[in-house]
Amino acid sequence: MTTLLEHLSYCFDIDIKQAELYITAFQHTSFVHEQKGNQKPYRLKSNERLEYLGDAVLELIVSQYLFTFYPDQPEGFLSRTRAALVQEESLAKLAKQLKFDQFIQLGKGERANGGQYRFSILSDCFEAVLGAIYLDQGFACVERILVHYLLENHQAHLQSLAKDYKTLLQEKLQQQGNIDIEYRLEGESGPDHARIFEMALYVNNEFKGRGQGRSKKQAEMAAAKAALMAESASSTPS
Amino acid sequence: MTTLLEHLSYCFDIDIKQAELYITAFQHTSFVHEQKGNQKPYRLKSNERLEYLGDAVLELIVSQYLFTFYPDQPEGFLSRTRAALVQEESLAKLAKQLKFDQFIQLGKGERANGGQYRFSILSDCFEAVLGAIYLDQGFACVERILVHYLLENHQAHLQSLAKDYKTLLQEKLQQQGNIDIEYRLEGESGPDHARIFEMALYVNNEFKGRGQGRSKKQAEMAAAKAALMAESASSTPS
Repeated sequence: MTTLLEHLSYCFDIDIKQAELYITAFQHTSFVHEQKGNQKPYRLKSNERLEYLGDAVLELIVSQYLFTFYPDQPEGFLSRTRAALVQEESLAKLAKQLKFDQFIQLGKGERANGGQYRFSILSDCFEAVLGAIYLDQGFACVERILVHYLLENHQAHLQSLAKDYKTLLQEKLQQQGNIDIEYRLEGESGPDHARIFEMALYVNNEFKGRGQGRSKKQAEMAAAKAALMAESASSTPS
Repeated sequence: MTTLLEHLSYCFDIDIKQAELYITAFQHTSFVHEQKGNQKPYRLKSNERLEYLGDAVLELIVSQYLFTFYPDQPEGFLSRTRAALVQEESLAKLAKQLKFDQFIQLGKGERANGGQYRFSILSDCFEAVLGAIYLDQGFACVERILVHYLLENHQAHLQSLAKDYKTLLQEKLQQQGNIDIEYRLEGESGPDHARIFEMALYVNNEFKGRGQGRSKKQAEMAAAKAALMAESASSTPS
């Protein structure tokens, strides 16, 4: 079985110097709180400080890339594009693609609730890993990794985010067991050439979200997105 | 008379390579919009794109400094301290100290309204200058400047921010002409050992803000802060 450090070395093509940074980056606060006898100076650290640092590294690298890539776009466009790229679901998608969910250390309760698939936990872990790489390998290395995984294909990445809400929701719910997902048409309006559909999403017959769109597919996406947002908001610890 | 470039060279001890970056950093959008015949490809640029970049550079440098300076503090403390250091009034204070207000290019209406003293305009200009230095001189140079002007004395800087509201307000209002600033005691409450004072601030007999504190001085500070915040919020272009 591949260890975390082997996995990261392989994914990012790096020669890891300070292993403890990467191990910390995968330790969610719920895991750290659960450890017995977790006293100074042997206390395990959670990934929160690394996430705080990685967030700032990510912000600068994305800002600079977009600044250079779009020399004629105004600040508003750059800020909106940056916000879309660094949003939770965007980073969670990358974390999932990099199989971070298989390595995240969670508390038992959090794991039982499928925490390893939660956008906020995956996204925070991704930022913490960036913080670890920044400290261990330097700015240029994080930049190379982000250009490869996020920035050079950022337009396709943003499109796939918009497309993927149904898939993400399905993956997330399936982790929770036997799930019946149903989209129901709730209404149609507007003239034939500009029809608007409204779909509602039910999970095990319970209403979870509603969305509108120019096609049934689009309305289903919007409903899945609403459900994901609602769940992400309600399950984020304060 | 010292030119902008001489002034910046001297303040920051830098050998400027791309002068146009620094000139752009001082061009507020109100100035750019006012220029006649401001057509591509000769269009003047406003400082907004540089501010977007400088903001991200600032964020990373401050984050990293605090991360290292406070090795045992949790993420929450780091985030709060960072937010206090990069807030508008903190950066506006630095910009004022560096005499940026004497060089900012504003539109006529903005200048007539004392725009060169507005927190948001000064703060944005400061970030734009950081963006210019980053592009012209590199990350390490911005870091050296921020350590010198903001970070190595960040605790004193944060304290002085809290103290300076009355002074800042007074300076700001005096630019608008003959101003009568009056603090009126509106109430006292609580037991003798824990008295709370409430002061209201009137400018030319018009109510501008209210604040509470453990002393009259503290309550005046709070009232001045409230007035500055209200003005900053209402005068920020959307």
